[in-house]
Amino acid sequence: MKKVMVLFFFCLVLQLNAQSRQHEEKIKTIYEKALTSGKAYDWLDHLSNKIGGRLSGSLNAERAVQWGQDELNSLGLDRVYLQNVMVPKWVRGTFEYASIITAPGMSMNVPVCALGGSISTPSSGLRAGVVEVKTFEELEQLGKEKVKGKFVFFNRPMPAEIVNTFEAYSKTVNQRTQGAEKAARLGAVGVIVRSMNLRLDDYPHTGSMRYGDLPNNKRIPAAAISTNGAQLLSSMLSLNKELKFYLKLDCKNFPDVPSHNVVGEIKGSKYPDEIIVVGGHLDSWDLGDGSHDDGAGIVQSMEVLRLFKEMNYRPKRTIRVVMYMNEENGLRGGTAYAKYAKENNENHIFALESDAGGFTPRGFIFEANTVQYKQIQSWKPYFEPYKSSRFELGGSGADIGPLRNDKIVLSGLRPDSQRYFNFHHAANDTFDAINKRELELGAAAMASLVYLVDQYGF
Amino acid sequence: MKKVMVLFFFCLVLQLNAQSRQHEEKIKTIYEKALTSGKAYDWLDHLSNKIGGRLSGSLNAERAVQWGQDELNSLGLDRVYLQNVMVPKWVRGTFEYASIITAPGMSMNVPVCALGGSISTPSSGLRAGVVEVKTFEELEQLGKEKVKGKFVFFNRPMPAEIVNTFEAYSKTVNQRTQGAEKAARLGAVGVIVRSMNLRLDDYPHTGSMRYGDLPNNKRIPAAAISTNGAQLLSSMLSLNKELKFYLKLDCKNFPDVPSHNVVGEIKGSKYPDEIIVVGGHLDSWDLGDGSHDDGAGIVQSMEVLRLFKEMNYRPKRTIRVVMYMNEENGLRGGTAYAKYAKENNENHIFALESDAGGFTPRGFIFEANTVQYKQIQSWKPYFEPYKSSRFELGGSGADIGPLRNDKIVLSGLRPDSQRYFNFHHAANDTFDAINKRELELGAAAMASLVYLVDQYGF
Repeated sequence: MKKVMVLFFFCLVLQLNAQSRQHEEKIKTIYEKALTSGKAYDWLDHLSNKIGGRLSGSLNAERAVQWGQDELNSLGLDRVYLQNVMVPKWVRGTFEYASIITAPGMSMNVPVCALGGSISTPSSGLRAGVVEVKTFEELEQLGKEKVKGKFVFFNRPMPAEIVNTFEAYSKTVNQRTQGAEKAARLGAVGVIVRSMNLRLDDYPHTGSMRYGDLPNNKRIPAAAISTNGAQLLSSMLSLNKELKFYLKLDCKNFPDVPSHNVVGEIKGSKYPDEIIVVGGHLDSWDLGDGSHDDGAGIVQSMEVLRLFKEMNYRPKRTIRVVMYMNEENGLRGGTAYAKYAKENNENHIFALESDAGGFTPRGFIFEANTVQYKQIQSWKPYFEPYKSSRFELGGSGADIGPLRNDKIVLSGLRPDSQRYFNFHHAANDTFDAINKRELELGAAAMASLVYLVDQYGF
Repeated sequence: MKKVMVLFFFCLVLQLNAQSRQHEEKIKTIYEKALTSGKAYDWLDHLSNKIGGRLSGSLNAERAVQWGQDELNSLGLDRVYLQNVMVPKWVRGTFEYASIITAPGMSMNVPVCALGGSISTPSSGLRAGVVEVKTFEELEQLGKEKVKGKFVFFNRPMPAEIVNTFEAYSKTVNQRTQGAEKAARLGAVGVIVRSMNLRLDDYPHTGSMRYGDLPNNKRIPAAAISTNGAQLLSSMLSLNKELKFYLKLDCKNFPDVPSHNVVGEIKGSKYPDEIIVVGGHLDSWDLGDGSHDDGAGIVQSMEVLRLFKEMNYRPKRTIRVVMYMNEENGLRGGTAYAKYAKENNENHIFALESDAGGFTPRGFIFEANTVQYKQIQSWKPYFEPYKSSRFELGGSGADIGPLRNDKIVLSGLRPDSQRYFNFHHAANDTFDAINKRELELGAAAMASLVYLVDQYGF
């Protein structure tokens, strides 16, 4: 009996070793193909340079939908389809402009851009004094008397000492999202927000903002100012509290328009009803071409399925790529995808999102229970040789958030974050800021993780 | 007795915890100061933009020595001094040029640069046929008959599938270092070497080469060709094996000239005779301004000592910064530093080098024995919050190599390697390719490691 037991365990160990070697080989192939014959970079070149910025509701967003569908069709997937989504439509307009006026006839221009969702200024622009604050508490302390009739200038820099730049972003972004609402309630005529950027440069960074339940006639225009512009304005204010700021925005909100998520899938050979989703968002802001945010995530997600096809890997479970529409200013795509999934009683076991830039992947973040996370951690050694083995628990991604329940595992690719906010939502988020190998390594890491989830399930 | 023992262990645990918290705090301060009031970036701006490329033996190299000495003096160190080193002097000259000639009067230019140490072509240039090879074995198989009177074109690309780009470099760089010698022995008139670059672009990458014991009259000119140029030449050759290549180089070797290592130190308060060294190399190639190779390592090393001064940290051991001269084409500075150390019976316990680019630090590589490495690994948790905790055993760095013995621990900073060979030894290794935060994070990681070594010794 004892001999039989020993033999049994011996065989088990052999089998586990064989399995583990097989996974290592598959992952090696994934990396080799991604780095030597990958398509992510060429795809992104097209999406960025032939299509460009693709704000929800724009013609470019629809061109991107068409392109996404065509490319997925060319991969020979089992199914490619569009999902209907109504999206907000906001248009920047033709002209935005600002200057600091220190004395009659003495002014200097500063780089600004409207925040997404902002109303325009009057067509002759808006001219007023400025109060500078760093926090909402400071703003409240100033009170109506000092704020009324003025621009509120929110000038809280992203804290440089925080190594994870997304954490630094989370500590400052409320100026952008809620600043206008808070300032309007105190009678301000407009807000100027320091760009969410860790370096000093001349690019204003746009992004979403909201007015909450402010009635239309109480809403005020909101613009981002470049970090250099913010430094200048702040130092000018310290010399002359009476200076004026001139702002002209030409943006406009329109009624919602129809748009689409793009979905493609390889049907599972063994458990077709267990769905694994990988995706990014197809829309972008309008200033750059959205190469990092989130063209990178789109082409990396496409590459996962393309790699499986190139390798002739037939997944056990159904693998889906989803290009979500309208992450930037509405999250309508992600919300709709989850709604359709629920209506169709689909069983999603895993959702992976790439929406943190196309930089060198450091690892993944997971939303998972203890048992699931233990299993995930057992896969770390597979990622060690590729230096992408940083696994953490935490918030995964906006678009897959609506899928959250007590069974599904959610995950986000976590690339190096140091350069991201140089480009985020700004005119320099363009294809030249992408490094081909870094982009490809992200796609390979994602494909490797999806492969392991497909092999083991949860 | 038992109670006493329990109390003893309890106190020990408390003390260890307190110590560990104290280290965490110190390292947090190091990072905060490096990221908010660091000087590395401004220093590098000066070294790159006000001085520029600084090849050994050049006027710029001496300007860099002077600058390094002045800056260290301004830090209020206990001792700043120069070490005499004789260095090779090779000068690129005024004009280098190449073209592919497909038919009489039909030619196209390709970007080339002389390899460091190469002889020049005749002043009228060199015109000959081309044989393309990928390896030395291929070259040997061709033999004298097919090589004689021709250019040998070494065209083995860096393997893209290798994630660590330094490993990919090590698999291809012998074309550059030994190609001319091997080809000359078979009667070639010159060599053209594909640039060590993982992407396709128009920058030729220089670097050191040697003729071994070839007599002067057998030496042949050696040039690097950009990766795009190499692709073009290869495809033209596949169409027309009889095409000619024209090369004109104007470079020259001169007798050795005097130069210097720059050294600065903070005297240890408790163990002044135990020396910890941190450094990079002050010389660079002449094409760019050497921002990544190795201006970054220089300013990060300076920053380690500056941070300690700013924090009022008085080290137990002597901490030295060394700016080595002539890493690129001779290693005379590193060799001289070790020789002086030996002559002066100095006891070096640890040497750290930064010479792999100013990119996001991923961790460190160590040359250490089992006991030492166990201690080093116990420090990993301190680097976790800063995502720089990849510790590996392996070759540390060229300049500190000559210090190697059976007691000293050698270490190299290991930044992300994906972008490094885009810039390495090329005209685009310039300050604009540096990211401020990435550079600063490297300096902070180095200071943290030096702090821990200072606290514990080996």
